[in-house]
Amino acid sequence: MTNTKKPFFKKAAIIGVGLIGGSIAMVMKEKGIAGSITGVGRGRGNLETALKMGLVDTVTTDLAEGVSGADLVIAAVPVQRISEVIKKALPALSPPCIITDVGSVKKAVIDAVEPLLPEGIDYVPAHPVAGTEESGAGAAFAGLFEDRVCVMTPTGKTNPSALARVKSLWQEAGSKVVLMEPDTHDRVFSAVSHLPHIVAYTLVNTVAGGDGRELLKFSAGGFRDFTRIASSSPEMWTDICAMNRDCILEMIDKFQFNLDQLKKLLKDGNLDGVREEFEKAKAIRDSIL
Amino acid sequence: MTNTKKPFFKKAAIIGVGLIGGSIAMVMKEKGIAGSITGVGRGRGNLETALKMGLVDTVTTDLAEGVSGADLVIAAVPVQRISEVIKKALPALSPPCIITDVGSVKKAVIDAVEPLLPEGIDYVPAHPVAGTEESGAGAAFAGLFEDRVCVMTPTGKTNPSALARVKSLWQEAGSKVVLMEPDTHDRVFSAVSHLPHIVAYTLVNTVAGGDGRELLKFSAGGFRDFTRIASSSPEMWTDICAMNRDCILEMIDKFQFNLDQLKKLLKDGNLDGVREEFEKAKAIRDSIL
Repeated sequence: MTNTKKPFFKKAAIIGVGLIGGSIAMVMKEKGIAGSITGVGRGRGNLETALKMGLVDTVTTDLAEGVSGADLVIAAVPVQRISEVIKKALPALSPPCIITDVGSVKKAVIDAVEPLLPEGIDYVPAHPVAGTEESGAGAAFAGLFEDRVCVMTPTGKTNPSALARVKSLWQEAGSKVVLMEPDTHDRVFSAVSHLPHIVAYTLVNTVAGGDGRELLKFSAGGFRDFTRIASSSPEMWTDICAMNRDCILEMIDKFQFNLDQLKKLLKDGNLDGVREEFEKAKAIRDSIL
Repeated sequence: MTNTKKPFFKKAAIIGVGLIGGSIAMVMKEKGIAGSITGVGRGRGNLETALKMGLVDTVTTDLAEGVSGADLVIAAVPVQRISEVIKKALPALSPPCIITDVGSVKKAVIDAVEPLLPEGIDYVPAHPVAGTEESGAGAAFAGLFEDRVCVMTPTGKTNPSALARVKSLWQEAGSKVVLMEPDTHDRVFSAVSHLPHIVAYTLVNTVAGGDGRELLKFSAGGFRDFTRIASSSPEMWTDICAMNRDCILEMIDKFQFNLDQLKKLLKDGNLDGVREEFEKAKAIRDSIL
C-alpha cells in the first residue's frame, strides 16, 4: 500500500474552495501535482479570492463545466453536501477519474456515493484532520496539513491504485495517513471531535445564555480556551451531527452517565471519589501534552 | 472606596508561597509594598525556592512564628484550608493586622473566619482571578495579575479602611478590583469557572478513559485547547467543589438540562433546532474574542 511516488493529475477540480479545498489546492500548486486546477463553487466572491491568490487556474459556478475532463475531483464541501455534489458531477465525468472527499464523517457518505459510481470512476474516502475556526479561500495555507493525520477509510470497493494516489497526495501535503474502517472512523471522531464540540456549544449556552452574558467578563483564560471551538461554524457542525447521529448520540449518553456519576459523588460528599475522577482525567490529559 | 495611595505594610506573612502567593510576594517586593516578607509553608523545598528567587526575605514551616508581628497576612492556601490556617494564626497575631485570602470560593470561607476574629484583627475576603496550570513558587511571576480582575467580597463586618488597603494592593498588582456580594461571587464563579472545569475533567474521562487513551492521537488542536483545564490540580478542584457544592450542583443541573435538550433535538432530527443552539453559542463566544 506504500506509495512514495508523487502523484500527477492532468486536471484537478476542487468543489468548494474553502479553507480545506483552498489549502490542498495550494499544496498541489506548490508541488506541481496538477497540470491545472479548476475551482468550483457557489459564491463568486470566494472564487475570485481563490483565483487572485493563485490557488486555482480557473473558476466556475457551473459544476458540470468545472469537473468536465478532470482526472481528480476533490469534494471539499460540508459533509452533508458531499454525496449531492458527487451525484451532480458524475454525468460530466469521463473515466479514468478519481473522486475523493475531505468529510469528517465517512460511513454515511460512502453509503450514499458508492452505489452511484459507474465503471472507471473511483471514489476514495478521506478525512484530513485539520482545520481552524477560520473559513473561506482567504484562510487557506499550504502548511495546514503538515504533521497532521489524514484518515482514509477504503472499503472493499475502493480501487487500490486510486487509494495509493490519493494517499500520496496527502503525504505530499505533509500528513501522516492512517487507514481505518469507516465505522471505526465515525466512532473515533464522535469521541475526540464531535462530542467536544457539542459539549463546548452547550457549555457556552449554559454559562452565558439568557441574561448570563455579562458574567463573561469574569471568565479567565481557561474559559476562553475551553470554548474556542464553540466559535466553529454552526452550519458545518449541524451537518456533522446529522451525518454521524447514532455515534454522537451514543457518546452524549456516555458523557451524561459520567457527569451524573460525578454529580452523585459530589452530592454524597464523597470527595475522595471526586478527586479520583479529576486525577484520572489529569493523568490522561497530561499524557498528550 | 477609591484608594490610589500605595499601601505599605511593615511585615507581610504569606501562608502558602505557591503560584499566587509567590506572585503577589514578587509584586510587593518590586513595588516596595512591604518592609519584609515572610513565607510560611509546609514544604521546605518550595520555601527554599521562594527564598532563592527573592520572593520572600525569610521562610519558616512554623505558622505561629511566621505570622508573629505581621500587619498583613495573606492566606494563599487551597480554599478548604484557608479558615484552618487563619484559625491557627490568630493566637500569634497582634492588632493592628489585616488578614486576607485569595480563595476562589468566598461564602463558606467568610462564614468560617468572621466569627473567629478578635478586636483589631481585620479579615478582607478577596479572589484574584488569575492562575495557570503551573503551581509552586517556581512558577511565580509579577505579571500574573496584570489586567486581570480581582473580586473582593466585603461583608457588613469588613473594616472599610482594611478593605481599601487590600484593594490598593491588588490595584498595584495591575488588577481591576470588582466588589461583589459573597454569594453572588460564588454563583458567578460556579458558572464561568467551576462548571467548565468539571465538564473538562468529565469530557477527558469520557473520550479517553478506559481503553480509549489511544484515540487521543486522532485529537486535533481543538481537543487539546478544550481540555487544557483538565490538567489543573485535582486537589485544588476537589477543594473548590467541596466549598461551593450547592452552586456547582445547581450549575451541573442546568448544563445537564441543556445537553438533554440538544440531544432530544438531534434524536428527533430537528436540525434547525440544533443549528439554532450552535448559532446562539457561537454568537456569545465570538462576543468575548
